[in-house]
Amino acid sequence: MKKLGSLVSGAWVEGKGKPAQLVNPTTEEVLAETSTDGVDMAAAYAFARDRGGPALRALTFKERGALLRKFSRAIHEKRDELIGLGVQNAGNTRSDAKFDVDGASLTLAAYADVAEELGDTKMLVDGDPINLGRSSKLTGQHAYFPLHGVAVHINAFNFPAWGLAEKAAVALLAGVPVISKPATSTALMAHRIMELAHEQQLLPAGALSFLAGATGNLVDQLGGQDVLAFTGSGGTGAMLRGMKNVVEHAVRVNIEADSLNAAILGPDVESGTDTFDLFLKDVVRDVTQKAGQKCTAIRRVFVPRERLEAVREALAERIGEAKVGDPSREDVVVGPVATKKQQADVLAMIERFVQGGCRAIVGGGKPKSPLGVDGDRGFFVAPTLLEASDAASVVHEHEIFGPCTTLIPYESVDALIASVRRGGGGLVASLYSDDKKLVREVVYGIASSHGRLVLGSEKSAGSAIPPGTVMAQLVHGGPGRAGGGEELGGFRGMELYLQRVALQGYGPLVASLVDGARRV
Amino acid sequence: MKKLGSLVSGAWVEGKGKPAQLVNPTTEEVLAETSTDGVDMAAAYAFARDRGGPALRALTFKERGALLRKFSRAIHEKRDELIGLGVQNAGNTRSDAKFDVDGASLTLAAYADVAEELGDTKMLVDGDPINLGRSSKLTGQHAYFPLHGVAVHINAFNFPAWGLAEKAAVALLAGVPVISKPATSTALMAHRIMELAHEQQLLPAGALSFLAGATGNLVDQLGGQDVLAFTGSGGTGAMLRGMKNVVEHAVRVNIEADSLNAAILGPDVESGTDTFDLFLKDVVRDVTQKAGQKCTAIRRVFVPRERLEAVREALAERIGEAKVGDPSREDVVVGPVATKKQQADVLAMIERFVQGGCRAIVGGGKPKSPLGVDGDRGFFVAPTLLEASDAASVVHEHEIFGPCTTLIPYESVDALIASVRRGGGGLVASLYSDDKKLVREVVYGIASSHGRLVLGSEKSAGSAIPPGTVMAQLVHGGPGRAGGGEELGGFRGMELYLQRVALQGYGPLVASLVDGARRV
Repeated sequence: MKKLGSLVSGAWVEGKGKPAQLVNPTTEEVLAETSTDGVDMAAAYAFARDRGGPALRALTFKERGALLRKFSRAIHEKRDELIGLGVQNAGNTRSDAKFDVDGASLTLAAYADVAEELGDTKMLVDGDPINLGRSSKLTGQHAYFPLHGVAVHINAFNFPAWGLAEKAAVALLAGVPVISKPATSTALMAHRIMELAHEQQLLPAGALSFLAGATGNLVDQLGGQDVLAFTGSGGTGAMLRGMKNVVEHAVRVNIEADSLNAAILGPDVESGTDTFDLFLKDVVRDVTQKAGQKCTAIRRVFVPRERLEAVREALAERIGEAKVGDPSREDVVVGPVATKKQQADVLAMIERFVQGGCRAIVGGGKPKSPLGVDGDRGFFVAPTLLEASDAASVVHEHEIFGPCTTLIPYESVDALIASVRRGGGGLVASLYSDDKKLVREVVYGIASSHGRLVLGSEKSAGSAIPPGTVMAQLVHGGPGRAGGGEELGGFRGMELYLQRVALQGYGPLVASLVDGARRV
Repeated sequence: MKKLGSLVSGAWVEGKGKPAQLVNPTTEEVLAETSTDGVDMAAAYAFARDRGGPALRALTFKERGALLRKFSRAIHEKRDELIGLGVQNAGNTRSDAKFDVDGASLTLAAYADVAEELGDTKMLVDGDPINLGRSSKLTGQHAYFPLHGVAVHINAFNFPAWGLAEKAAVALLAGVPVISKPATSTALMAHRIMELAHEQQLLPAGALSFLAGATGNLVDQLGGQDVLAFTGSGGTGAMLRGMKNVVEHAVRVNIEADSLNAAILGPDVESGTDTFDLFLKDVVRDVTQKAGQKCTAIRRVFVPRERLEAVREALAERIGEAKVGDPSREDVVVGPVATKKQQADVLAMIERFVQGGCRAIVGGGKPKSPLGVDGDRGFFVAPTLLEASDAASVVHEHEIFGPCTTLIPYESVDALIASVRRGGGGLVASLYSDDKKLVREVVYGIASSHGRLVLGSEKSAGSAIPPGTVMAQLVHGGPGRAGGGEELGGFRGMELYLQRVALQGYGPLVASLVDGARRV
């Protein structure tokens, strides 16, 4: 049996005690075991802080960027192997796994590009010098310096490669060492990436550590110069945010959690138009891609009452014909969900939605005979389209983290805005319309409860980037239920790892301190 | 007996039950009573959100700024009356009270100036449009929109006027309604300001509410579109940050808490120089002004071992001769601390410092016969200079929030940097040196654990703004022990009340949505 180690204090170690198992969600075959029991978390933290931190801070942004570039290439070189691990351990189709692996290498490369812009300095300037007082001798200048602590990154099971890379890229470029923990159930891909990084000595010792399993008392080590970034369920996020040392020492916390992402069809959009088709394509993609296991996937589909029937019919047809089964097969579009527990949770939540007033248009349970799968094996869920009225509050309160979305008709733009906002804060919403006035009204109405708004229109239909795709250039996060976090967005994501300081004093002295630094 | 009301749901109401008393800390005379028992906090919250929020969001930044300008003038017109209330209720000298009242009107005016720059729009643009994808049709544009919730502001007892105004100015300009709560013990001045605002109808109904007493279950109302901003003790800050609804709904929290602000004398600075004198003046001011009750006051004074004697002698002389007594007297420099409890806490903490290895150079207890005070009345603490070695860990762990500071010798620059950082994160540190190389080394060494660094030098000595003075243009806050918050700093403070959203779509459509908005 393959045993996964953890990379801490500069070396691979194996935990003791009863291991957790990594399973192939298609065959239920056990692929590997791992444990972090007995790993000295305090020592791991101290090594990252005292070795990794100074080593990174000794480099300029440009030098750190060169490391990220190498890291990106190392992942890309092993693309096929990593994709294979995604198929095997995460139930990914090859296309799903590519989305994850390429997301990882592209995000690292994007931050290598950011590094070039930030240049050969170790701190950054925020805004213009400010004249203070009457004499014009005194200047105030805001600047950013890297924290002297450690970033603990706790990632979700759905993006083992991208999750590791997108968080690490930002922290490492800022100059802060990382201890990264993938979800144990799908850790194979992240583990392999860390092996590559270690074998090729891509980063200074202590800059990037890795825990293939539970974090034990690691989070308890964190203090006021540290960062805790988490992607996963709202419940775990709240637990972490409320931890004693986190609240007492104002540990910086970034959380990406549940999100009832909305897709909105404008009243102006008629069946058969490019905008209508773009809308359908985006909704169907988010039900099928990664078996619906994307934090950005569309969960609520708002359509004008008068288009309900047409949309229902078109979605039902496309979702109904999506082939479910062994994700290594070329003809399969929807693989299993990642774990037995996820399957049980998704099925139970669908049942809860039905009890709460939704009806299943297609799917709604386990699929009949998934392609290429023996008997009842595998953690499959049938691609599911539900329908509800806005009054079914369950659709605004819970996320079904699987291949499922819910159709909700709306009667007016005001009612639509109120209904979208009932989700309590989301990562992304997408609006499909060619009516500029409507777009403005809806954007201004729902903007403050979202981190990103995607506008689908006739003009963009041919080249649109789907709402579910997170890009390094744009912020990823959302208020309220979505966790209140903010990642990526070029420099913006780096703010989490930097301290903004106001420098105040004699103008030329202040200027000399920030000489050559890039203004962000 | 004067009874203070609360301004909630658009009207003044009085609480029931046993009231809290507001006392003159010089005479111990009871000045007023107040209670918020029975105030309907859920209704107060809903009124602010549903009436104040839409009313503010209907205005442009420029229009909101005009309201702040009027508010500033209304305070300035009643300056003398408000100063009198500070002397009476907060133990302020007239100079102390001016610092508070003028701080309030100047900060409101400064944000009225920011509003002029932000112009006649209702949202703001963050950064340049970003070209997405290959076709050049797609644009990403970050923008800021006001949250649709309520800001609850809980202020400290030391700055009743400024605390109210500096937090409210930023939130109101952002477009978010405020419910402000002063510390009950010194609420007279804030209460009077709210009377002026209400009488003159300076703001739309629901834009600024006021609780003259405990917040009851107000904070429990908050969700993902709301903000909680607190200034006060680290313990209360941690309690608020860890509240169930706060962690579960990702309520935005901003905390300014304890801070062991450092003043550092550079090894190059000789007695008798302008830089040396500036250093002495800043330290003495922070012991005496507001009886040392400033969150930015210098608590740790780091001096090179070889200058210890000279500094000790100079500080002992100046601190020792500061006249303590009735703050309404012109010859008095140090008034009482704000409450009997503060007096007891400060005296107990001084004792704890002495037990922990500090020795009292001057002061260290109650003063003998404060000027103009009968018998043992009044909450006086003698201006106190302590001295300790770096090894006395108590000086790096606790704040004495009164007229007291501690002298600590250092042996090397490395040891100095480590020692300053032992404070665990501070609002401000000041460095007095004319050695550019040293300044750079210290700044880079301590920057990430501070929100502001003040550089005192020969060239700035004549016009320097003291480290204890918080300006609207520069950020106020600090990591770790200081609460991890960030207020003011021009636009920067407004980020707390705005949602950053990435708009993504066809370039001209995205551009039309942000047309005319100011880029920040």
